[in-house]
Amino acid sequence: MPDPILSEGSFSIEFQPVGIRLICSEPITLLDAARQAGIQLQNVCGGKGICGKCAIQIIEGESNPPTRSETTFLKGGILKEGERLACETTVHDNVKIFIPPTSLESKQRLQTEGRHDIQEIQSPIHCEPIHLNPPSLTHPIADLRNLLSAQPGMYFENDERIRTALQTIPAVLRNGNWDVYAVCNQNEILNILPEKPAAMLGLAVDVGSTKIACFLMDLPTGKTMAVKGIPNPQIAYGEDIMARLEYALQNDAQAAHLHSIIIEAINEVINSVCHEAKVKPQAIMDFCFVGNTAMHHFFLDLPSKYLASAPFTMMVDQALNIPIDALGIQGMPGSKAYFPAPIAGFVGSDHLAFLLSSGFGDDQHTRLGIDIGTNTEIAIQKGDRIVSCSTASGPAFEGAHIRFGMRAAPGAIEHVRIDPEGNANVDVIGGGEAIGICGSGILDVIAELKQRGILNQRGRLDREHAHVSTDDSNMRIYTLIPPSANQREITISQKDIDQILLAKGAIRSGIAILMDYLKVKDEDIAEVIIAGAFGSYLNPQHAIQIGMLPDLPLHKISAVGNAAGAGAKMMLLSSALRQKGEQLAKQIEHLELNTYPDFDMFFANGIRFS
Amino acid sequence: MPDPILSEGSFSIEFQPVGIRLICSEPITLLDAARQAGIQLQNVCGGKGICGKCAIQIIEGESNPPTRSETTFLKGGILKEGERLACETTVHDNVKIFIPPTSLESKQRLQTEGRHDIQEIQSPIHCEPIHLNPPSLTHPIADLRNLLSAQPGMYFENDERIRTALQTIPAVLRNGNWDVYAVCNQNEILNILPEKPAAMLGLAVDVGSTKIACFLMDLPTGKTMAVKGIPNPQIAYGEDIMARLEYALQNDAQAAHLHSIIIEAINEVINSVCHEAKVKPQAIMDFCFVGNTAMHHFFLDLPSKYLASAPFTMMVDQALNIPIDALGIQGMPGSKAYFPAPIAGFVGSDHLAFLLSSGFGDDQHTRLGIDIGTNTEIAIQKGDRIVSCSTASGPAFEGAHIRFGMRAAPGAIEHVRIDPEGNANVDVIGGGEAIGICGSGILDVIAELKQRGILNQRGRLDREHAHVSTDDSNMRIYTLIPPSANQREITISQKDIDQILLAKGAIRSGIAILMDYLKVKDEDIAEVIIAGAFGSYLNPQHAIQIGMLPDLPLHKISAVGNAAGAGAKMMLLSSALRQKGEQLAKQIEHLELNTYPDFDMFFANGIRFS
Repeated sequence: MPDPILSEGSFSIEFQPVGIRLICSEPITLLDAARQAGIQLQNVCGGKGICGKCAIQIIEGESNPPTRSETTFLKGGILKEGERLACETTVHDNVKIFIPPTSLESKQRLQTEGRHDIQEIQSPIHCEPIHLNPPSLTHPIADLRNLLSAQPGMYFENDERIRTALQTIPAVLRNGNWDVYAVCNQNEILNILPEKPAAMLGLAVDVGSTKIACFLMDLPTGKTMAVKGIPNPQIAYGEDIMARLEYALQNDAQAAHLHSIIIEAINEVINSVCHEAKVKPQAIMDFCFVGNTAMHHFFLDLPSKYLASAPFTMMVDQALNIPIDALGIQGMPGSKAYFPAPIAGFVGSDHLAFLLSSGFGDDQHTRLGIDIGTNTEIAIQKGDRIVSCSTASGPAFEGAHIRFGMRAAPGAIEHVRIDPEGNANVDVIGGGEAIGICGSGILDVIAELKQRGILNQRGRLDREHAHVSTDDSNMRIYTLIPPSANQREITISQKDIDQILLAKGAIRSGIAILMDYLKVKDEDIAEVIIAGAFGSYLNPQHAIQIGMLPDLPLHKISAVGNAAGAGAKMMLLSSALRQKGEQLAKQIEHLELNTYPDFDMFFANGIRFS
Repeated sequence: MPDPILSEGSFSIEFQPVGIRLICSEPITLLDAARQAGIQLQNVCGGKGICGKCAIQIIEGESNPPTRSETTFLKGGILKEGERLACETTVHDNVKIFIPPTSLESKQRLQTEGRHDIQEIQSPIHCEPIHLNPPSLTHPIADLRNLLSAQPGMYFENDERIRTALQTIPAVLRNGNWDVYAVCNQNEILNILPEKPAAMLGLAVDVGSTKIACFLMDLPTGKTMAVKGIPNPQIAYGEDIMARLEYALQNDAQAAHLHSIIIEAINEVINSVCHEAKVKPQAIMDFCFVGNTAMHHFFLDLPSKYLASAPFTMMVDQALNIPIDALGIQGMPGSKAYFPAPIAGFVGSDHLAFLLSSGFGDDQHTRLGIDIGTNTEIAIQKGDRIVSCSTASGPAFEGAHIRFGMRAAPGAIEHVRIDPEGNANVDVIGGGEAIGICGSGILDVIAELKQRGILNQRGRLDREHAHVSTDDSNMRIYTLIPPSANQREITISQKDIDQILLAKGAIRSGIAILMDYLKVKDEDIAEVIIAGAFGSYLNPQHAIQIGMLPDLPLHKISAVGNAAGAGAKMMLLSSALRQKGEQLAKQIEHLELNTYPDFDMFFANGIRFS
């Protein structure tokens, strides 16, 4: 498919994970390209190839071979295998670049907080002191029997857990002088420690396609000890889920690679939160991971190939407790990770976590929940029924396929007001010069253009308006920011508007089908809960104006940020909430939109502008 | 400790696993030394270093550096790392050599059959056909739920088993066109196969310190499909258990090595029995392994260090079911291996298997069971009580520490009659020239010497007798076979006799203490069951004559050969017998002989000759 943005003779440089693209017509070093795109790479030496700070990876495309500086840095361990120095790398054709977080001057904004706090802490993890009598020639009791008879009722999950536990327990018993501590999940022994642990921590993680949000929690009190968001390293293998599923489909080694880089990333973020909280990873005794179905399957190393095509079959739809040792995750040996149930198709356990933390199923209210992303999950509760669906809204709201689009990172325009003359007034994340525009900004632009009549009822830019012109390929563009000394020109094209209208159409038609299916009218809806990073910065009035949301009183609409993360924390900290989540998972019906009667009609209505 | 056999200026070459020693005073190649000791090494080229067949390993001691031939064979993969060619290796000081089975012309005799057949076959392993409905867009059921709802009541052991099973099941379901077969242990699913398995086999193994006896069984019928005995490769790290425990104690890597060579040997013997039965290892769906406590702990990679010294603490005293994948054993993925309970100290699950297969606990008879080895386990049943003990009888009955001693291998004298003049008449295993004497032969010699009055009441050789002389170190020796053209001289020394009397004393005092403890008199004993290879060739009358066994009517004494292997087969093939074994394990009391009052007096009585 030809790229909709590129004109003849030009090429694009795409920077990930920030998601910004630069169009060039001359060869350029990646350091210069990043500068032009407004991305601040670490660069102590000023681009002389002697500091080694501007390391990047080329995901796709051609460049010059590594220079002598780079070879030296590679041998010295400063560059990793596959990395290049941006200042030493020249490109002349389409390339895709991944910037590791360590090479960025300022970090991408990654939302890690949801709105809900956990009311009721009831972690099943506890620690019990145990006193044993040492064995003797006259009472030569086996270590296992000695341990289990000191604490009747406690048990190991199975014989293999006994075997692996016995590889370390005997030394612990003797080092602890037969006074030891059992870390248990209810009555199941997870580990035996020679001393009382200084902290008992848990980790809740929302494994998103784009970002991994990680919460280090104190299990007894529910206090948040550290929070960290990192980009999902799988981005290098496809921005959206389908691209990654296709990558995995090509061969088993690639599928295994997508599994192992997720595990590596989790171990990295564990080090990071532990460093912040000044604890060791061994203090983490419980884990809860949520994510969409593809992330869930990649994480657990389950076959993902059957998710990639109809009927999009999941391998498992129940919650799983998996020993961290089996997955290679850091933490207290013997700990397990809880994976809440995925729902169906692409509707994963992150959606379950969102609904759980947003009060779905708590009462009989009619409510609408939307988690906006590349795939948008939508759920409606009516009485005892909860129906969910997934719609491929695409990455436009995250800035992809938009000429000046980017994710919500420093330099992104996040809010726009347009005055009656058509002049724009913008808010930029981080407050500096604008380098691009993120989803909430684009939505604002479209709603404001419509209100000012610069965009007509059919969603076309008014070619007569003073701020509307045409580009080289005769495409209509609205000039959001004219070029100046320190500021690149930023425009919104008719194609950009079409992309956003398609995306909002996918969401609106999903809402409409669920409402039709459950016979819900606009006025029945008591509340609309919008989750996800984009949802937090979204202007709800603008979303209604462009027809993304039904026309409801604004007070009914609320944004909850990382609601999936909040749900993961809830399930980490309370076994009652795990049970509630498992009940909720059984309650949620999944609707495959493509199979719904008159789906095409709903979609056509959905993309309409008014 | 100075070697009791060596004189000044001489050195010894010890060949394992056959257990024979050659005393030399001049440098010699190992091929010549093996020839002189009567061991037939493979040797196609006649010792020219060009066939590579006479590979051996030097376990201890010095030799010349590898020659050019050896380096070439090593590079060509004909020699393994650490191996030498016997014909290219010259020694001039004490060495210990391990001969791999592949380098021997004739194989060591390894007893693999016990006396009992399994009456009642009731394997818990069965195979069920399952039909599933393929998932569809309108019924997008997860693979796991699809499978479990097709066969209600069936389950996987836990979530981690679900996860690993789901790595292969989805492809199996689709390859089997949704008509598949579940291999189950009762209601627990072990594996899903796309086709009905051609054979359902099980493997029973007696993991002895010296030999590993392996039985490939047909699970539905109990038929023996193949039998194979191989030497335990751990022999290279110590002939007796204590030596191996001490080797393991030195560092974790050495302990891990003793674990991994056992697993390798098991996989090798699996290949061998499968080759013989013309099946693939994947046809093996159930396993039962018995062995002494040290073998049990080495096999399961449990810490063995606490077994090495008082109070000889075991890590576990219950039966364990361990997934073969966790141990790295070949077989049907998802299969488990059953490890019956060890009893206490050095009394392992092989002893339990012996007692189970010998009818202990079946009725109220008073019976005595003896499993003779380097460690001898003894049990007495009286009514509902069964008491066991272990005694360090040492390796003399297996030919070690005896000047011309060797194991029961071709060339060993296994039976001896001495005529009134003192001339010996010998039976040699395999029928050729004698190269040494094994345990049953030595026992015969001592009993016959006693009967002929050549050995007095205090166990001393009569120096006046024509067949008794003294050697260089003034030690009395009895000439069993005088030297001739094709025959080395074979003698029995006073030291050899002392070693055997010590060994029989350990056994007799164990029997006496158990009888004292349970207040059992000779006449109460209804039957004596003797297990082990040595026991099978033992002349019971001679054993009574030298005071090893109480003076009982010979019809009460029976040898049962590899009774531990027979018990392993029973527990492999019947879940009722597994339960009976678990019950028996709880019933058996363990008596630590060293803690018994007047132990020294019992031992002094035990070693007495009459």
